[in-house]
Amino acid sequence: MSLPNQVYPVIWYQDHVRLIDQTRLPLEYSVVEISRCDDMALAIRTMIVRGAPAIGVAAAYGMYLGAREIHPNPALKDSTAERNDFLNRLEAVAQKLRATRPTAVNLFWAIDRMLKAARQTIGTVDHLKQVLLETAQRINAEDIETCQAIGDYGAQALPSSPDKLRLLTHCNAGALATAGYGTALGVVRSVWRDGRLERVYADETRPRLQGAKLTAWECVQEGIPVTVITDNMAAHCMKLGMIDVVVVGADRIAANGDAANKIGTYSVAIAAQAHNLPFYVAAPLSTVDFSLSDGSQIPIEERDPVEVYQVGETRLCPPGVEFYNPAFDVTPASLITGIITELGVVKPADLIQFREKQVV
Amino acid sequence: MSLPNQVYPVIWYQDHVRLIDQTRLPLEYSVVEISRCDDMALAIRTMIVRGAPAIGVAAAYGMYLGAREIHPNPALKDSTAERNDFLNRLEAVAQKLRATRPTAVNLFWAIDRMLKAARQTIGTVDHLKQVLLETAQRINAEDIETCQAIGDYGAQALPSSPDKLRLLTHCNAGALATAGYGTALGVVRSVWRDGRLERVYADETRPRLQGAKLTAWECVQEGIPVTVITDNMAAHCMKLGMIDVVVVGADRIAANGDAANKIGTYSVAIAAQAHNLPFYVAAPLSTVDFSLSDGSQIPIEERDPVEVYQVGETRLCPPGVEFYNPAFDVTPASLITGIITELGVVKPADLIQFREKQVV
Repeated sequence: MSLPNQVYPVIWYQDHVRLIDQTRLPLEYSVVEISRCDDMALAIRTMIVRGAPAIGVAAAYGMYLGAREIHPNPALKDSTAERNDFLNRLEAVAQKLRATRPTAVNLFWAIDRMLKAARQTIGTVDHLKQVLLETAQRINAEDIETCQAIGDYGAQALPSSPDKLRLLTHCNAGALATAGYGTALGVVRSVWRDGRLERVYADETRPRLQGAKLTAWECVQEGIPVTVITDNMAAHCMKLGMIDVVVVGADRIAANGDAANKIGTYSVAIAAQAHNLPFYVAAPLSTVDFSLSDGSQIPIEERDPVEVYQVGETRLCPPGVEFYNPAFDVTPASLITGIITELGVVKPADLIQFREKQVV
Repeated sequence: MSLPNQVYPVIWYQDHVRLIDQTRLPLEYSVVEISRCDDMALAIRTMIVRGAPAIGVAAAYGMYLGAREIHPNPALKDSTAERNDFLNRLEAVAQKLRATRPTAVNLFWAIDRMLKAARQTIGTVDHLKQVLLETAQRINAEDIETCQAIGDYGAQALPSSPDKLRLLTHCNAGALATAGYGTALGVVRSVWRDGRLERVYADETRPRLQGAKLTAWECVQEGIPVTVITDNMAAHCMKLGMIDVVVVGADRIAANGDAANKIGTYSVAIAAQAHNLPFYVAAPLSTVDFSLSDGSQIPIEERDPVEVYQVGETRLCPPGVEFYNPAFDVTPASLITGIITELGVVKPADLIQFREKQVV
């Protein structure tokens, strides 16, 4: 198994996208080559690529791949008609990609940004396609810079005592969940670089175990000490004084600061408050949905019950049982100490000040 | 697979003990025959039998099986010497059984009761052995009656609104965790019998998944609607108004009402308080350790990390990761609405009134 020095789960390579197959980590490192929009939609839906910012980047490339598959109708008379036809058909590509997953708003943000780039571009369809590729690549590059800024702002905001922090995170808001570096794990990377991190505690994050699989894998790659616990141990660890701070990612943040993130985040936030521990959400501004006044309006994806009742080849539950499998929950702003963005760390109530600074 | 009408995980049959092998449920129902004390110790340690009251009953039979294996030293001159030798060697049997698991106090309670029964009996070694078998059988029978009383008292104490309750439980405090009927699931059985139960929500209870496997299995046996969720979904379900009341078991309760139970119980209790939901602990008085003033003194078993990093044949985590696997946590009395015992339901602070009523 050959390992990368740095983790880039979504990259453009020659004429196609390469995705790290996150369903096979940590025991197998493999890359999936994506050349068609339909394949990208499937990769997002099946979580070969996952994590709100990474989904955004993947969807941006998916838009380009879909655009590339649009060939002018020979019956069209001129380049204006061709352009209009292209934009209409690009909207259908957007619809296909939007339908993959409902909660992470970065998906919709990236798709809208790609549509806007096309609409605002004058010129031939070939030129529009070229602009779309460049826009996707820009979204990709910006996401890495954004994560590095989040990491550094987060490192400044985290408690200065003790000297070395024991940081709990939930799910994977790492390099794998972004174009690289990570959001919550971007903060981890920055405090580790600064010599201020003792250990990461990673909730395993049932049902899909992104903590046990992906966050653990990223920490091992970086040489960061990591202890995996089951989700239900987090409160107990807090009570025993084993945790200094909690940092998680987000899939969609409402204008008031309520934050949707992987199921179980809300439970961790309640426990953090009960133990007077700071609880930070790290996310790019593309994760903020200023159109929603609060978190109750965030759509919560429900996924296949098989994720709950089966692990690997092992079926856990007897026949006759029902299941509930919400993929996300919403942590109210009242439980969030600060939101770490690429423009700085703000209290949830102050998030609104960034409204005009969001690139759309 | 032939199924019992009623679930008795520990029974005396002819000249040996029959245990339901709880490591093979829910997909396989099989019975393990135990004729030797060493085998019973192994069965407790490996969780073929588990659940605090069931461990107590199993240990009582283990004491008898150990006693049966003690054969008089022919060098001893009289029956008094034989009796003393027997009691000394019975203490070694007790030590072997005490070393199996540290948290559930019913284990120690049952062993001490067996030792006391032997010491208080006058007569030959053969007579002492007969008394030990009868005492184990009495502990067994009493536990079923106790659970039925717990179930009925609990049913009276639970909220009268709504008409049909949605009850969340954690781990398995069921018939399988007792001699029969269960403690938390004894309450479930009684409210179901009374037509006041809509549905059980069962936390899957990582790492060993006793909720997904055992509680789900018991509910299916009884025809009780059951929804299995991952542990980290409980708080989200509470927030959505899907849960009316929480009832869990206990492995050891301190004199002040602090209750040790399966890891994750504390997390559920914090979430219940955050949502103003009643949180009950159902346990026989044999689970109360009046010698401990509070829960900080309860020893917490740590188990093999393999329970965290592997499910079935599937290894979840990459190499290089550390683990923490406490089997229990302590829920402070302040988060407990009431403790449901065979003598009635009390507030944690009032538990002390039962001190003199505990059979030792």
